[in-house]
Amino acid sequence: MTELAPIETDAIVIGAGPVGLFQVFQLGLLEIKAHVIDALPYAGGQCIALYPDKPIYDIPAVPVSTGRELVASLLKQAAPFEPAFHLGEEVESLARQDDGRFLLGTSRGKRFLAKAVVIAAGVGAFQPRRLKVDGIEAFEGRGLFYHAPPAAEAMAGQDVVIVGGDAAALQCALDLTADGPQRPRSITLLHRRDVLQAPSLALAEMQALCEAGQMRFQVGQITGFEETAAAGERRLSAVQVSDVDARLHVLPVGQLLVFQGLSPKLGPVADWGLALERKQLQVDTESFATSEPGIFAVGDINTYAGKKKLIVCGFHECVLAAFGAAAIVFPLRKTPLQYTTTSTRLHQLLGVAAAPAKP
Amino acid sequence: MTELAPIETDAIVIGAGPVGLFQVFQLGLLEIKAHVIDALPYAGGQCIALYPDKPIYDIPAVPVSTGRELVASLLKQAAPFEPAFHLGEEVESLARQDDGRFLLGTSRGKRFLAKAVVIAAGVGAFQPRRLKVDGIEAFEGRGLFYHAPPAAEAMAGQDVVIVGGDAAALQCALDLTADGPQRPRSITLLHRRDVLQAPSLALAEMQALCEAGQMRFQVGQITGFEETAAAGERRLSAVQVSDVDARLHVLPVGQLLVFQGLSPKLGPVADWGLALERKQLQVDTESFATSEPGIFAVGDINTYAGKKKLIVCGFHECVLAAFGAAAIVFPLRKTPLQYTTTSTRLHQLLGVAAAPAKP
Repeated sequence: MTELAPIETDAIVIGAGPVGLFQVFQLGLLEIKAHVIDALPYAGGQCIALYPDKPIYDIPAVPVSTGRELVASLLKQAAPFEPAFHLGEEVESLARQDDGRFLLGTSRGKRFLAKAVVIAAGVGAFQPRRLKVDGIEAFEGRGLFYHAPPAAEAMAGQDVVIVGGDAAALQCALDLTADGPQRPRSITLLHRRDVLQAPSLALAEMQALCEAGQMRFQVGQITGFEETAAAGERRLSAVQVSDVDARLHVLPVGQLLVFQGLSPKLGPVADWGLALERKQLQVDTESFATSEPGIFAVGDINTYAGKKKLIVCGFHECVLAAFGAAAIVFPLRKTPLQYTTTSTRLHQLLGVAAAPAKP
Repeated sequence: MTELAPIETDAIVIGAGPVGLFQVFQLGLLEIKAHVIDALPYAGGQCIALYPDKPIYDIPAVPVSTGRELVASLLKQAAPFEPAFHLGEEVESLARQDDGRFLLGTSRGKRFLAKAVVIAAGVGAFQPRRLKVDGIEAFEGRGLFYHAPPAAEAMAGQDVVIVGGDAAALQCALDLTADGPQRPRSITLLHRRDVLQAPSLALAEMQALCEAGQMRFQVGQITGFEETAAAGERRLSAVQVSDVDARLHVLPVGQLLVFQGLSPKLGPVADWGLALERKQLQVDTESFATSEPGIFAVGDINTYAGKKKLIVCGFHECVLAAFGAAAIVFPLRKTPLQYTTTSTRLHQLLGVAAAPAKP
């Protein structure tokens, strides 16, 4: 098997949360091209994974915004710099090369060569909490999905079981009840308790759909599974469910979609030889450099005297880390501070340069 | 003359620019009550004084915003904490009292007693550039106004001369031409050159008004003045103007409104014994404390390793300065970091607490 050539770029940003996104913007203002890698299958980090619809009140000059709105604004702001996103994959390895650059490898086998790395990984890579059923891990990605269901086509005519008791699990079930060619044969929401943590409107909608026979709600926990083999490929065919009275049920399953929450893991970052303090990366406050020249850390993953784990603080850290990265990426260039209100060059980069004034 | 008792408060914020406004918000989240003092007659600092209508692109999560919009958002965000603003006055003196608090005195004779002071004074107090005409300073505030015209009633039936060549000067003249009981008898825009720095629409409007005899535009510079005395009070009655050909004109004047730009002066801050480096206040990056315990400095007025004079950096500094101030204002209280997404207490303070859920 031939290894693909690594992607060469100025900088890698690890983490596509709000701070990682603003990092891309700040790097862009200094003409540093960045690729962004995140374990989650979408940009936005915690803001999207944990509180997409909760209002945030302390983003400066944004009196109120949901996590989703905040991320949309940051994506829009970074868009002129056309960052390349690599989502749903984790950076597993990082090693300095002889030429001073860093070689990074991801869980999907991609490789990157970059002059600077900014770690904006928050509390770590978000990992879905997995089912504790021996052997079921063999089906992940084909019949078993955590937090990121497959394309709608894969649901058509299937027995779909959704596991979870929060708004995301319920919404997934409700969305699948929509009429159309991609409608599953059956939709079952399975939760260990009979209480769901979801908005009352969604609960009412579920009740109506259950009464109309459009979906089912089942209380219980998965204790085992059944499988078939077709054309040499193993497929999930059913799950065994134990209900509150310890009675066993067998639910046929074509697709098993699990929403049991996300749990952050610092993961491989801890193994890269960077100075840590209580699992956080030690940085200086001049450029938010870690103990390894060329590697910076911004946002909740870093620590320094006075550190507050707030998004607004991460934004500032991005600015100084960008200047730190500029000194590495362009060692011969002096990088002046320019203002977006006045700099013609920044206006060009942002795509807002006015047409030349008429005489 | 009896001195008024000083206003007692937790904290004084010197400077009502964007960083000073966000400082009020951050202090508010920690339940620290603040009064804000600014030399300009309006909140917003440079954003309003220098570039109210220019787009800013680097406020995080705000892809584009004018200075005016930014300030409006920050005022709205700080509003739940009901900051008291003291505008158009400068802090002239600051001295520590025996009880550890600071006594501040302003140019309007107000006095404040505060446990903590945050200096967010940017490049200093903005001072209007004044007319260089001997003796004319006697009329400041009665017939002569810099950048902050008196109330519209004071213009009624008067000969108004506006001095300046920028958009603010022209707009002031255009606004006065509106019909109504407060319309001046005459409106003259006076500028040393025949070129104005103003939007073409406003220039076209001026030309039409001049042609219709509603206002005049005069090229020249003020070289002297005439005065009258009525009931023992001296009043400006005319200005002598030298035109490009050095011919003298006499313009009758009831109100003289001067817009010759604003120029920042560090002013008394330099005399308070705080450690300075190139006219900037040295701070630590843990709480943005100056060399004097209880006095903090945030935004463009401070300096530290890596400092970038950007609004986004000032926002971060406000957060850490607020925690620094909390340790002074509430020495016995441990101040935990709370999140506006989740803290019931912060929701109460922000006035967004949901009504208790129904059982």
